[in-house]
Amino acid sequence: MNVGERHYRSIWPIVSNERRAVGIVDQTRLPFEFATTELGSWRQVAVAIRTMQVRGAPLIGVAAAYGLALATFEDASDAELTAVAGQLAETRPTAVNLRWALERMQAVLRTTPPGKRAAAAWSEADRIAEEDVACNRAIGAHGARLIGGLHAARRRVIRILTHCNAGWIATVDFGTALSAIYQAFDAGVELHVWVDETRPRNQGLLTAWELAAHGVPHTLIADNAGGHLMRRGEVDLVLVGADRVTRRGDVCNKIGTYLKAVAARDNDVPFYAAVPASTIDWTVDDADAGIEIEARSPDELRLVGGLAADGRVASVRIAGAETPVANPAFDVTPARLVTGIITERGIVAPEALTRAFSDAAGAAVAVPAT
Amino acid sequence: MNVGERHYRSIWPIVSNERRAVGIVDQTRLPFEFATTELGSWRQVAVAIRTMQVRGAPLIGVAAAYGLALATFEDASDAELTAVAGQLAETRPTAVNLRWALERMQAVLRTTPPGKRAAAAWSEADRIAEEDVACNRAIGAHGARLIGGLHAARRRVIRILTHCNAGWIATVDFGTALSAIYQAFDAGVELHVWVDETRPRNQGLLTAWELAAHGVPHTLIADNAGGHLMRRGEVDLVLVGADRVTRRGDVCNKIGTYLKAVAARDNDVPFYAAVPASTIDWTVDDADAGIEIEARSPDELRLVGGLAADGRVASVRIAGAETPVANPAFDVTPARLVTGIITERGIVAPEALTRAFSDAAGAAVAVPAT
Repeated sequence: MNVGERHYRSIWPIVSNERRAVGIVDQTRLPFEFATTELGSWRQVAVAIRTMQVRGAPLIGVAAAYGLALATFEDASDAELTAVAGQLAETRPTAVNLRWALERMQAVLRTTPPGKRAAAAWSEADRIAEEDVACNRAIGAHGARLIGGLHAARRRVIRILTHCNAGWIATVDFGTALSAIYQAFDAGVELHVWVDETRPRNQGLLTAWELAAHGVPHTLIADNAGGHLMRRGEVDLVLVGADRVTRRGDVCNKIGTYLKAVAARDNDVPFYAAVPASTIDWTVDDADAGIEIEARSPDELRLVGGLAADGRVASVRIAGAETPVANPAFDVTPARLVTGIITERGIVAPEALTRAFSDAAGAAVAVPAT
Repeated sequence: MNVGERHYRSIWPIVSNERRAVGIVDQTRLPFEFATTELGSWRQVAVAIRTMQVRGAPLIGVAAAYGLALATFEDASDAELTAVAGQLAETRPTAVNLRWALERMQAVLRTTPPGKRAAAAWSEADRIAEEDVACNRAIGAHGARLIGGLHAARRRVIRILTHCNAGWIATVDFGTALSAIYQAFDAGVELHVWVDETRPRNQGLLTAWELAAHGVPHTLIADNAGGHLMRRGEVDLVLVGADRVTRRGDVCNKIGTYLKAVAARDNDVPFYAAVPASTIDWTVDDADAGIEIEARSPDELRLVGGLAADGRVASVRIAGAETPVANPAFDVTPARLVTGIITERGIVAPEALTRAFSDAAGAAVAVPAT
């Protein structure tokens, strides 16, 4: 999407005779500064994923694919590439796209002789990136029809609550949940977005930055406020992305999503998660039993980044190092609270997921999980 | 309660031949600095309430009472005191204790000749403060029995989730919800407190500060995390204070409380609000219809206070002035989600409130709301 006059993707290949690298938008500096940086090795890619310079499930997958491709330029041996794939997979334990993209890259590498692996890997990473753009465009088209339908039925501004950042900077372009919002807005649907701040990492500020850049009406709120707005009838739809969706439709997404889903149910507000099919983990049925919830650093809560009085990016400490902190990064919204999953193939009720994706689901079941 | 070696209340009278004033703990500087300040006029009291140097429903009531008492030393006329009471009542529109305390003060002032009003008002404010301490001690004793009962039944550490700050610094001493926790802890009950950060004003940091000072085991969490903890079976009890409870048991408390209550119900976790009876507004049945929800400054969300790298108290801007923000300060937890109200008279189910308080409820109904 656009930043000022120029169109950007969140990640792009840099190819010359001398070197290979990937360019990224450094998301740890957003929304305070818009900066790009280059990653020239798989190690730099791993650091970028771990420190959340790149973030968002789809983008992490693409970044890891380019990371493995970069590794082939250093050492294209089976042993090295297996080791690198393992290290990249460990950067974010909850994100399923990461493992999906690495497995796809490895399938190509396994059937390619070492001397041709660099070119093959780079092409495959490019393909994953292009497919992500096409996929998110399709997700957004389906989601935009849902929003348009609400607008046609209610004949007033449609108020959408979103949590975390499921926007273009969480993908290669368009986003997932925000792709629907962008496309509905561009089609002339009157809408307004309630943007959860999304503590502790405040990804809602990224969402507000994206929406402002695109001109979409929105209001930033504390995570605490969404239930109140629903009770007052000021939310028509909760629309989020997800880091993983299970076979039965459990939604694993940014911590706090469940609270919005349970409040949505209490107020008869529909709750949708927008994801590419690659986010559906056909090997897991019950997310509580089958998904490890990443525990992130206590300092994410203790330190808050922003602009200091002198205009520089700085952080303040709101709690001392002696204050005990728990920081689970994701939660599970059980399928019973999910109205539908918006994918590139259409909108599917949780209980219909395996039927709608019988090809993918069947393949996943045929191959035992490793 | 104690701060270091010394016992403090959150507010105290300062009386000498030359002047009258009230001392307060300046809560806008906690938990980063422990500082006290003196308020020498009703105008300073009004500013202190509005800027939340004093905060917490019971403490606001006591502060307003001292404020009106201070006004009697300047001008004890009916017209002036009525005007001052009106201005003090407007400092925080949602807090019922504020109006309750001011009405009680005015009832004394009305029946006292102007020349004796200063002494009478000061004594009455002192009485309100002492009654608050006795009341909170009693609330805590009932709440501690509830926690002790859970401990006896489950024979392990009882994990309590709390939101905002219902501690001693929100009252004159002891607190409401935290009074129960302090008294259970002091009685040897093994417990652990999950402390919601409570955006946007981060009052959870005050709770963590209080609990640390008293040695109570606790863990600070993002407001988003509580639902996840409940789903994982890591919460035995949600225990909060309240700014107003209605006749039928609707609980109006800090924004975000409803999200915890609805998640508690979804996970069969009991939800209790601990309040003095003066917090029950017998003139309102349906909180959604009868309670104005205060909308506070957008800058509460846009700016975050903490300690800068140089150790000074500072704030960072996380969202620009151009970012639209909505900041409702309270929400309503409907009575159907409330297990019980803990008061100085005991623990009462919402539907039993009017019967248990038939004296107070009857009196309130006999006098039309003004």
